[in-house]
Amino acid sequence: VCTHTYTLIYEGKSKRVYVKNRDELILEFKDEVTARDGALRSFIRGKGIINARVSAYFFSVLNKKGIDTHFLDYDGARKMAVKKLRMLPLEVIVRNYAYGSQLKRIPLLKPLQELNPPIVEFHYKDDSLHDPLIIVDDIINSGIATHEELNFIIKTSLRINDILREVFSEAKLKLIDFKIEFGRDRDNKLILADEISGDTFRVLDDNGKHLDKEVFRRTGDPKLLIDAYIRLCEKLGIKVDDIDFHG
Amino acid sequence: VCTHTYTLIYEGKSKRVYVKNRDELILEFKDEVTARDGALRSFIRGKGIINARVSAYFFSVLNKKGIDTHFLDYDGARKMAVKKLRMLPLEVIVRNYAYGSQLKRIPLLKPLQELNPPIVEFHYKDDSLHDPLIIVDDIINSGIATHEELNFIIKTSLRINDILREVFSEAKLKLIDFKIEFGRDRDNKLILADEISGDTFRVLDDNGKHLDKEVFRRTGDPKLLIDAYIRLCEKLGIKVDDIDFHG
Repeated sequence: VCTHTYTLIYEGKSKRVYVKNRDELILEFKDEVTARDGALRSFIRGKGIINARVSAYFFSVLNKKGIDTHFLDYDGARKMAVKKLRMLPLEVIVRNYAYGSQLKRIPLLKPLQELNPPIVEFHYKDDSLHDPLIIVDDIINSGIATHEELNFIIKTSLRINDILREVFSEAKLKLIDFKIEFGRDRDNKLILADEISGDTFRVLDDNGKHLDKEVFRRTGDPKLLIDAYIRLCEKLGIKVDDIDFHG
Repeated sequence: VCTHTYTLIYEGKSKRVYVKNRDELILEFKDEVTARDGALRSFIRGKGIINARVSAYFFSVLNKKGIDTHFLDYDGARKMAVKKLRMLPLEVIVRNYAYGSQLKRIPLLKPLQELNPPIVEFHYKDDSLHDPLIIVDDIINSGIATHEELNFIIKTSLRINDILREVFSEAKLKLIDFKIEFGRDRDNKLILADEISGDTFRVLDDNGKHLDKEVFRRTGDPKLLIDAYIRLCEKLGIKVDDIDFHG
């Protein structure tokens, strides 16, 4: 997958998006990391490759388990070919344990309190509004999705949670929560999109240590983050010894 | 209802609360009005009496229709005797038309777009957090209420909405939305509490003019607000000619 001949159509905080052809895009994972609404920002060599590789790994697992994802191909480095979709302006968050923004809105919950059954919540994707929490009725009333589509998204998100939990559990990691996004293909079918990486899930190892972006949110230290991401890959059996972290 | 012999146990932005006896409280409606998280604050002679009177009026209507409310007695001025309850830390908002904070979180909705069916949403009552929106699972997981209790609250809130809409409709007013609060009595029964006034509902007259606190939120002018509250009472057939608005 080569990008220099493709047209850049979007550059986000952690990815660039290129047009490959009428039906496909190229996602290029950047070495930048940002947190706290962009207040923390840093460059970490190797981070883009790791996140592309972790995402490719999880999309492959999910595809095998029958979840439709946008993933098509991975170049072994920082680029991924994906299906072109019309994205829903939603962040879908699945939570197994109380954490993060959930504790801020409802401090009566104990940190890391188990949520059984897991919960699915929705945020309207808009940086300028800080991706606010919305309720199911907002999604239907605004026409983002129909009631049936929303039920499909909830069911699929919980199924994805089951699959991810199993993978992490075999790696002796505990899945706290994760964020996913969906888009529509030509036939209006809802497909899992975006990425699945340490930037979008939170996992704890046996010692309660984060192997995810929380490390950077807390410390602002890109070196500690890349160490955590390397350990994450080791736990998952994802090869990283070919990556040049020092340049 | 006389308060000077009673113990003040709480003073909020618009009400004082006194202990009457083991089972009853006195609510005293103040002449203060605040908006925008306390950034706007003013004193309006007569506002306390009007809001006490409007609340007494609506609680009486709801009691007659079989809704359990905390309302016991009204002194004709700014004081109301109510049942002592253990309040839930929730603001329950019922919306018939998209407005206010809903448009802020989901700007895809059109202002005053009809919400059919009406929606019920929940906010965690905490000024320092700006009463954040929460989801149903947060309420259950935090132990604020059980699943059955929450269903009761939703059903009761929608029934209250039906009753209020009917009253307003007869007064040629359109009910946009309102905020209510519930508490538990000794037997853990959920009872409608707090107040029902121009401070807690939004209504439009035939010309699309607000007869509610929105007037003050927008203009910061206490005189315009009291004029709107007087018109509201006139529309509802609530007597105000005995109130001294000038002192």
